[in-house]
Order: sequence, then structure tokens, then C-alpha cells
Amino acid sequence: MRNILIIGAGRSASSLIQYLLNKSESEQLHLTIGDLSAELAERKTNGHPNARAIAFDIFNETQRHEEISRANIVISMLPAHLHYEVAKDCITYKKHMVTASYISPAMQNLDELVIANNLVFMNEVGLDPGIDHMSAMKILDEIRDKGGKVKLFESFCGGLVAPESDNNLWNYKFTWNPRNVVLAGQGGTAKFIQEGTYKYIPYNKLFRRTEFMHVEGYGRFEGYANRDSLKYRSVYGLDDVLTLYRGTLRRVGFSKSWNMFVTLGMTDDTYVMENSEKMSYREFTNSFLPYHPTDSVELKLRHVLKIDQDDIQWDKLLELDLFNPNKIVGLRDATPAQILEKILSDKWTLNHDDKDMIVMYHKFGYELNGETKQIDATMVCIGDDQTYTAMAKTVGLPVAIAALQILNGNITTPGVQLPINREVYTPILKELEEFGVVFHEKHVPYMGYNPQNVAS
Amino acid sequence: MRNILIIGAGRSASSLIQYLLNKSESEQLHLTIGDLSAELAERKTNGHPNARAIAFDIFNETQRHEEISRANIVISMLPAHLHYEVAKDCITYKKHMVTASYISPAMQNLDELVIANNLVFMNEVGLDPGIDHMSAMKILDEIRDKGGKVKLFESFCGGLVAPESDNNLWNYKFTWNPRNVVLAGQGGTAKFIQEGTYKYIPYNKLFRRTEFMHVEGYGRFEGYANRDSLKYRSVYGLDDVLTLYRGTLRRVGFSKSWNMFVTLGMTDDTYVMENSEKMSYREFTNSFLPYHPTDSVELKLRHVLKIDQDDIQWDKLLELDLFNPNKIVGLRDATPAQILEKILSDKWTLNHDDKDMIVMYHKFGYELNGETKQIDATMVCIGDDQTYTAMAKTVGLPVAIAALQILNGNITTPGVQLPINREVYTPILKELEEFGVVFHEKHVPYMGYNPQNVAS
Repeated sequence: MRNILIIGAGRSASSLIQYLLNKSESEQLHLTIGDLSAELAERKTNGHPNARAIAFDIFNETQRHEEISRANIVISMLPAHLHYEVAKDCITYKKHMVTASYISPAMQNLDELVIANNLVFMNEVGLDPGIDHMSAMKILDEIRDKGGKVKLFESFCGGLVAPESDNNLWNYKFTWNPRNVVLAGQGGTAKFIQEGTYKYIPYNKLFRRTEFMHVEGYGRFEGYANRDSLKYRSVYGLDDVLTLYRGTLRRVGFSKSWNMFVTLGMTDDTYVMENSEKMSYREFTNSFLPYHPTDSVELKLRHVLKIDQDDIQWDKLLELDLFNPNKIVGLRDATPAQILEKILSDKWTLNHDDKDMIVMYHKFGYELNGETKQIDATMVCIGDDQTYTAMAKTVGLPVAIAALQILNGNITTPGVQLPINREVYTPILKELEEFGVVFHEKHVPYMGYNPQNVAS
Repeated sequence: MRNILIIGAGRSASSLIQYLLNKSESEQLHLTIGDLSAELAERKTNGHPNARAIAFDIFNETQRHEEISRANIVISMLPAHLHYEVAKDCITYKKHMVTASYISPAMQNLDELVIANNLVFMNEVGLDPGIDHMSAMKILDEIRDKGGKVKLFESFCGGLVAPESDNNLWNYKFTWNPRNVVLAGQGGTAKFIQEGTYKYIPYNKLFRRTEFMHVEGYGRFEGYANRDSLKYRSVYGLDDVLTLYRGTLRRVGFSKSWNMFVTLGMTDDTYVMENSEKMSYREFTNSFLPYHPTDSVELKLRHVLKIDQDDIQWDKLLELDLFNPNKIVGLRDATPAQILEKILSDKWTLNHDDKDMIVMYHKFGYELNGETKQIDATMVCIGDDQTYTAMAKTVGLPVAIAALQILNGNITTPGVQLPINREVYTPILKELEEFGVVFHEKHVPYMGYNPQNVAS
């Protein structure tokens, strides 16, 4: 039996563990599943004989050394900043390692040591980062193999609610970490290139500069810019590309409505509000509006945001109960962002039978034999239930597949790696198709960058 | 002769030095004026026999010890973060000290030592902070002496261009540090209280929530909120006040226009723009607008900011040459804020014969014998010329007067001090009147907080 140590049994580990347990007989695998909560780890084993659940504390050095030394490969599903502790031990005991997280500078610094020990540390092999890298590199490599020159690359990804569970005015529910949704776009100006021109969008305009996309069978979506569109420019071999844009997908209309919170200041996470614990939702809203002895909070907000009486924005705000004087925040020393998250969670938490959905959309513009062409590639994945969510599948399955490929000696290039090489992405993307993670490619006319998506 | 050491001979030291030199005979004063530039220090002596100019490097310990030990009192007009070096030596050699800067935590920590040595370290005794503290405390004390209870305190201050030099569409020129003007309002949400309710304004709305004021003989002004309205609440004895608001004054219309830069992202100082050195003003503007193959930068900007063709906002932008393709930024690795400062400086730098103007506006609402009352106090100071500017007078004169009062034993309370006690503000405010720094008080109906300033 080959031992796989999985550290962290949270939401993103469900499909990962299920995949490996299903393969445990044929592939001779034994899983050790460690989590701070032994009960959570136990539940994820599903009583399978080839799995052992343990209470695992990453800061318990003795336990960490013991478990890592016994493993053939280690999968860390911990929060990103904790991988480093695991990584150091993996080098000591010469174990391969897999994570779904961005490569931190600390992790990157281990590259030489990892290579010297002939180990594979595969990172960013979940969804985003992960499937986005792999699916993009596959098509980019195909274009370049044919002699094409890439001129445009745009890539969007979003975690959304599945159409069958999409029953609120925002067409949105929290399918992952709500805090990240509330803070989205903060911490730096969005920067990208359009047709060779660098463009910058400040936070106050980020949700007002969206781009529309249509996905066959799933309707329209909109994308707003990520902060880091240029991060993978060199890694993807796109240094000469004219347009490089990465973004987040939402249903059409979400961003315009979200911008109301931005404009009011409700997404601010930099200060604590007075009396947040006993404040009502209505008082929270009023904190961001001018004082008036008699005017209502409602009218002041309509005036500040210029909302007509028949504007759907208004119904969206009502749906969230933002003017309710009886609902109390109940969070001590909370920032506006924390309070907004609380208010949204009342309405945007998935119901027991709700399903989530992952949507990815890539655009590749290129020149081949003097002609300009474009490929649009889309992927939609719907969750099975609240355990095997689309997020759990798309994050966990590629991690699991990568781990098994490394264990079986099919992925061998040593070092701190991303899944951007053919030997890595080819088998993973292929196997993901069995699980419904399929990219549909469509040849469309190349239009350069055109925000209205209209051939003019 | 009593020796006064003045460290820093920059713009704010002109009136300060002139005042002390004029008193040097009658008061038996000898000034040592130290600056990194000996030539600048020399110029400020005006060839006066009671002054000595020296090249002074605050980091030259030997020189610092020597000069401070020879002084009877030290005035530091250095940038705020450099006072601490001077302060430590002032304790060692038992010298009083005066600054126009905010008390830093490091400075505050010296309080016990300063008291133990029976020294006076007077800070925040320039304009803002300084004259604002003194003039506010004078009226607050008078109200409380009569048995009044303060319910509202609002205070505004602005450095502007004098009416006779006010000849651009923005009614504004740089009269002090342009960088601070470009960065105004950044680094934290504005927080204040209106009628007992805490209010918060995010940066993107800061310049859209102004309040109008009228100053007899000088017309209308508008104020936008400072970040730190509540900073002096306890110091001023205003813990129970219902409305506490501090702001910055501009001519009416400035803030709405300034908000265009905020909305576009041009005031951002957190990242460096690509190719800033060779970028034209037009390219700078275009960086914040969506790409389009044929639409003009002008139309894209009008569209994004919703500017009609006959809107004065447009003329204000044209006046700044923001669409000029031939003017080059010429700053390497510059942030948007640095580039905007450069562009504005082309147009907003004072001409040789321009004069500046300081305006201060306080409102005091209070209850006395069951009646509500309000006092509005205003002060306007116009510069004499480009050396003895309104800013130099209002910053430098109270510093000089305070120093002389301390030297003459009229201000004696030891410690790290603010000018909020009667023994301090009474003689200083009185003497400032001789220099035209006069507050005009007016009794007006108390209206509580009312943004339209209309008795309704």
C-alpha cells in the first residue's frame, strides 16, 4: 500500500478524498486524513477500510514529523500560509507534496532544495488557480504548435449558484468564503492590457467596467477585472500579447448592484464601527448617509445612489432587509465589511438542497497564416449536493489526480511547480472530463478587444 | 542676550524669524538659524545683526549637541518625524522646545521626562494644528464659564488663493505642499458625529458630501470632512457633544470637480504606472478609461463621468490640459498621484505676485439657561507676498509668540503640551490680532446640524 497523507478535511477535501478512496483498491492506496477536528476527518473517510482519520495539529511537531515520514506523498489542503511548515518536513523526509494554493514567496524559495531532493511540489492545481492554468495552457500550446501567434488572452472564472437554485434578485449565493466576496477588488488597483495599452481601474469603478459573455445553455454572465491580470504573463509565454485580462464572473447585473455597497462604504474593512453589536441593520445603513432630522433612511439612500422608484436596485436592497430596524447586527467591534457579510449571509447562504456552479470562460485571439482567429473555451460544472459541490469537485479532483500521477511516476519534473506543462495538464484534464469538467471550444471571429462584444 | 535656536528655515519660518528679529532689541534676543542650506538660512536673517545663519544637519550629533546646549529655547520647524532627535537633546540640556507639528506618540512618551525637568515642550502651535485649537478653546471656555453646555462644534480650515489672485476655474492654487492636497482624504474613512449619530464617509463620497459656509466679505466656501473629526473630542472637553465635525475649506465647486480625479483613479498613490516617464498627459488620462479602437479620449471621459457638453466640469478639465498629446509627464516610475500633482502644478502654482489666503470657520452650538444659541467665528488672513504668505504668518507667528512667552516665563506648565490652556492661548491670540489674525464672532440661531444651513 502507498500512504497518502491529506492534511485538512474541510469543504474542498470532499471530492478529493472520495476520488482517492474509490481508487484505493485498484491503486493500492491508504489514506491518512488529518484535521484539527477528528470528527470531521472521520466523516470524510465514509467508513472506508483504506482510510484512517486522525486529529492533526499542524503545530504539533512530533505528530507532523511522524505522519509525514510515514507517507509516500502529502496533500496539504490547509490555508495557504500553513503549507510552509509541511513543505519543510516534506523535504526532510523526501516526500512529494501537492497543494491547491498560490505559490508563496516562502514556498518558491524552497525550489532549489526541492530539485536537489528530486521531489515534485505541485501547487496551484485546484480550480482557480489550477484548472484555469491547465485549460489555458492546453489551448495556448495547441495554437503555438500550429504556428499561431497569440494576440489576446482573457480568462474569467466564477463560483455561482446553480440555475435550479438561483432564486433571489441578485442571482447570487455564497458558495465559498463569503469574506473574500465582500472584500473582492480591494487592496490594489486592477491593472491589465487592452490592445497594447495599460489600463487601470480604481476600486470605485471596478464593478462598473464589466464585460458580458454568453455560455451556451447557461445564458449571460458578466466579468469584472481581477487585480492581477498580468501575473502569469511570462509564465504563460504571453509577453508580447496585446490584450491580457483576467476577471471574475457573476450573473448580469450583480456588479452594478454590488457597486452600491462600494459607493456607500459598506465593504470597508479598515475600521471598526461604533456600537456595532447593538446596531440594527437600519442603523448600519444610516451610518453611511447624511444626517437629517426628518428624512427617512430610505429616501436618503435613494437620493445618494440616484435610485428611481421603479429601479430593480431598490428591490435588491429591500430583499436584503437593509432598512430593518429590528434586526440587530450582534457583532462586537465589527468592520463595515464584517457587518455586510453578516447581513448578506442571512439571505445568500445556500439552502440544504441548493447546488452551486462553477463557470470558466477563456478567450484566445491569435494570428495564423496571416489570418486572425479566436477560440472561446467554456466550462460549467454543477455541484451534486452540499458535500460534493462544484467547488469541491473542481478544487479537489485535480489535486487528487495530480497526487496519483506523481505517485505513479507520470509527473516527474522536480521542483516547486505549477501545472502548466503538458506532462501535467494532459492527463489531469483528460481524467477531469470523466467527472463532467469539460471545456467546450468554439471558433468565433477575432474582434480584438471590444467591450460590447459586437462585430462592428 | 537670550539665544533662540531655530531649526529649519523653510517657507513656514519666514514670519516667525521676522517677528523674533523685530523683537530682538527690546527683548534681548539672539537668533541662530540653522538649515541644511546655509544660503537659505542666511537669506532669512535679512542681514540682521542679532541673527547668525548656519548650515545645520540634524543628523550631525556634535553640532546638534553644541547648538542646543547654547540655546535658551529651541524652535523646530523640521518635518514632524525629525522633532524627536531635537527633543531628546532638549531634555539632556534642559531647554524648552516649540513645534508647529502634531504630537507624535514618540514625543508624547517624553512627557514624564519633560515634566521631571520642568520644561515646556509646546507643540501644535502653528495654524492647523494651532490657531484652530486656541480660537476654539477660547470660545468653548467662554461658553462654559457662563454655564453653557456645548452641543455642537464644527471647525473648518483651508489654505486658498487670495481673491485678488483667484483667476482659474478651480478657484484654487497650491499654497502649501501640493502632495498633501492630491492625497487629501486617503488613508482612512472620514468619521464624525451628527446629532448623536456616528457617520462614516468613504473616500469615493468624501468630496460629494460637502457643507456650505458664508464668510462676510469673502463669499461662499464649502467644507469636506477630515478623517479625524473625533481626535480632540476629549481634549476639548466635548465628550457629550452631539455634533462634532472638522473639515477642510475650499471654494464652492472645487470638491465636486476634484471628485472627477478620485473617480477616475488619478489620485491613487499605491502603484507605479507603466512608462510614466514618456507618457503624455492624454495617455495618462486614457489609462483610466476603457479601450476603444476609435472613440476619443474626450468622449470616453465625458461618458464615464456623465459630463454634458455645457457642463463647467469639462472646462475645468480642459484648463488643466488633461487631453494634451504633446505634454509629457517626464517622471520615472511615478504613481498616478505624482503624475496628477505634476499636471496640476503646471496650472496651480502661484505666480510671482499671487497672494494666498487662510480661512477658518468655527461653529459652536450650545444651551444656556434653557435656550439654544450658536456662535459662528471666522478668520481670514491674506498673505503680504510670496515670502510673508498667509500660511507663513499663521503658522509662524503663533510659534514665535509662544516661544517668547515661554522664554519670558509667562507660559510655565511643564510637559508635552498643546496650546489649549488659557495661560497659553490668551496672550497668543491677543498678539496675533496685531498681525491681522482676527476672529469675528457672530451670534446666529442654533439649528442643530443641518446640511443645507437653512432654518426649517
